[in-house]
Amino acid sequence: MAETEVAQVRFGIVGCANIARKVARAINLAPNSILHAVASRSIDKAKRFASDNGLDPRVKIYGSYDQLLDDPSVDAVYMPLPTSLHVHWAVMAAQKGKHVLIEKPTALDVGELDTILEACQSNGLQFMDGSMWLHHPRTVKMKEMLFDSKLLGNVNYIYSTSTTSASPEFFENDIREKGNLDSLGALGDLGWYCLGAVLWAKNYQLPTVVTALPDVTTNSDGVIISFSASIQYTEPSSSGATTNAIIHCSFLADTSMDLTITGSKGSLNLNDFIIPQRESSASFEFTLGAKFVDLHIGWNVKPERVVVNCDELPQEGLMVEEFARVVAGIRTTPGMLLDPKWPEISRKTQMLVDAVKKSVDLGCKPVYF
Amino acid sequence: MAETEVAQVRFGIVGCANIARKVARAINLAPNSILHAVASRSIDKAKRFASDNGLDPRVKIYGSYDQLLDDPSVDAVYMPLPTSLHVHWAVMAAQKGKHVLIEKPTALDVGELDTILEACQSNGLQFMDGSMWLHHPRTVKMKEMLFDSKLLGNVNYIYSTSTTSASPEFFENDIREKGNLDSLGALGDLGWYCLGAVLWAKNYQLPTVVTALPDVTTNSDGVIISFSASIQYTEPSSSGATTNAIIHCSFLADTSMDLTITGSKGSLNLNDFIIPQRESSASFEFTLGAKFVDLHIGWNVKPERVVVNCDELPQEGLMVEEFARVVAGIRTTPGMLLDPKWPEISRKTQMLVDAVKKSVDLGCKPVYF
Repeated sequence: MAETEVAQVRFGIVGCANIARKVARAINLAPNSILHAVASRSIDKAKRFASDNGLDPRVKIYGSYDQLLDDPSVDAVYMPLPTSLHVHWAVMAAQKGKHVLIEKPTALDVGELDTILEACQSNGLQFMDGSMWLHHPRTVKMKEMLFDSKLLGNVNYIYSTSTTSASPEFFENDIREKGNLDSLGALGDLGWYCLGAVLWAKNYQLPTVVTALPDVTTNSDGVIISFSASIQYTEPSSSGATTNAIIHCSFLADTSMDLTITGSKGSLNLNDFIIPQRESSASFEFTLGAKFVDLHIGWNVKPERVVVNCDELPQEGLMVEEFARVVAGIRTTPGMLLDPKWPEISRKTQMLVDAVKKSVDLGCKPVYF
Repeated sequence: MAETEVAQVRFGIVGCANIARKVARAINLAPNSILHAVASRSIDKAKRFASDNGLDPRVKIYGSYDQLLDDPSVDAVYMPLPTSLHVHWAVMAAQKGKHVLIEKPTALDVGELDTILEACQSNGLQFMDGSMWLHHPRTVKMKEMLFDSKLLGNVNYIYSTSTTSASPEFFENDIREKGNLDSLGALGDLGWYCLGAVLWAKNYQLPTVVTALPDVTTNSDGVIISFSASIQYTEPSSSGATTNAIIHCSFLADTSMDLTITGSKGSLNLNDFIIPQRESSASFEFTLGAKFVDLHIGWNVKPERVVVNCDELPQEGLMVEEFARVVAGIRTTPGMLLDPKWPEISRKTQMLVDAVKKSVDLGCKPVYF
């Protein structure tokens, strides 16, 4: 094999969910990965996915997940299956020696996720979940500029939303509303982002206590369709700060993806943290040391907008590139270790999802870590 | 008296708090009002207030509140006293025939406020609280454009903050941290705005249930310095919507004044709803019908910014002008009625303040209306 081919990680997509279209494109955009195969439970659906998305005719089309996992040319899988199927198919993939990039939520609970992580770890395989926004250069810039530099000071308060106004068909048919497929509902699908944003802003420190708020709404299947939660860090961190966070996630309100982080010295604010409004560039606002001018008739500083270009690869392309970079390293460099960062992020996020779920099940009682 | 003099409402300021400087300026800016007198508990402090603020030498200076209330030339008082003193001095003012413009929070509880309102009502006097933002043309524009026109659809979710990073001296000395002066702390001082914003967005419908969130923080005096609350409208309104609101108020985080309202068709967002960043114009963003484009790699619409000029009078000037307009009408037009809108807004806001206080006192139990 030529060197360029060795460096390209060959992906198989297990499941032709809608989100797979976006990631198929990303796999083709990322310079170090190539789409090798797609599988659906029916060969017709897999063929339709390939033609609808203009896939290269050389991409293998499989009518079962097992066939794809048995293909020795597949290095890594991207798995956008319903959450309840993750543990089975991700473990199966790991047993067949495939690195695992999996859609969020990673599993129904951290016990299932640990089963997946153990299967990956013991087979020397990298794991990553599909939280694309973590790979956007804006996210990197915010972290460097406002946190690493301590410009924001201690983080006192975090607020994050993920809401989308779902159609009647969604409530009828979408897997995210089916108790037997994605029983975490809005908590898994939307809450994953907001809980992940809280952890991100706290440098992956786990909170002290998580409490679901009384506004939780469930559908007739008992699946959460709207909820809010309070996440408290009551033990001061090494920086001396306690932090309160509030998240709100709903399939019942119009699109929002807000993230506000208020520190002792300033705040940052963006309204599209999960999917940037534009693909080629994204922005955030920050306000440092805002006070009122004399007589309190205005502010001494105005929010400043920072624009970050994202013109080489979209965030999902950067995610695939990062995943493939680690996978290629493991495959080609003797003794190269797995990157523990990504499974750790997934695991802590899943722990917070579990805590909110438990709090909801307990009637909004606090759940301590 | 010449007609122009009759039309000008003569204000007395009872108490030389810092906020009185802003309202003294507003009284002078509003075309239908004039500052007639200021009173402090000490004549020296009143004199210093007059000279520090360049008041007209004709403004009367009183060394006691009683003296000002006994001045027959005073038509109306503006009262920025500590909350615990409101009921005594506002009732006294009403008994002396003065219309009452009073700082928020209006009283320690709705029982006290009712005593004030009864004193005003029975003496034919107008009452209004000092919520300046309600008078800003931006607030009027948002209401017309997004609510009255139903552009936002049903209001599903409201989020509002009022935070400010207080200095150590503030925690030592400010009346808002003294249990015997302003025992409502951040709830009265900051929560008033956020609870008022929720009511405003719901056209002054009262909620079903209010619950303080577990992140409440109190100082050694037992005064609230940081809190959050959930406000739920679980009974569908005439429009068929249930609404959840979350507010966050704190003296422990950097300045923020966010208001986000998410409806079934769109959302509005502003980050300076209480004190606009600039005095002469203010803006808000709205986003209507946001969906993701194909492949979910961006949004189909971007937030639009609406700029509203405020160049004739600042919001506190508009507040004084509106109050003086009603007062002048009552004084000069036989049979002119009090405007019930303003006391009703105050009373409902105070009811929500009371409910949050009760929930905090009950250990964050829900308080039903």
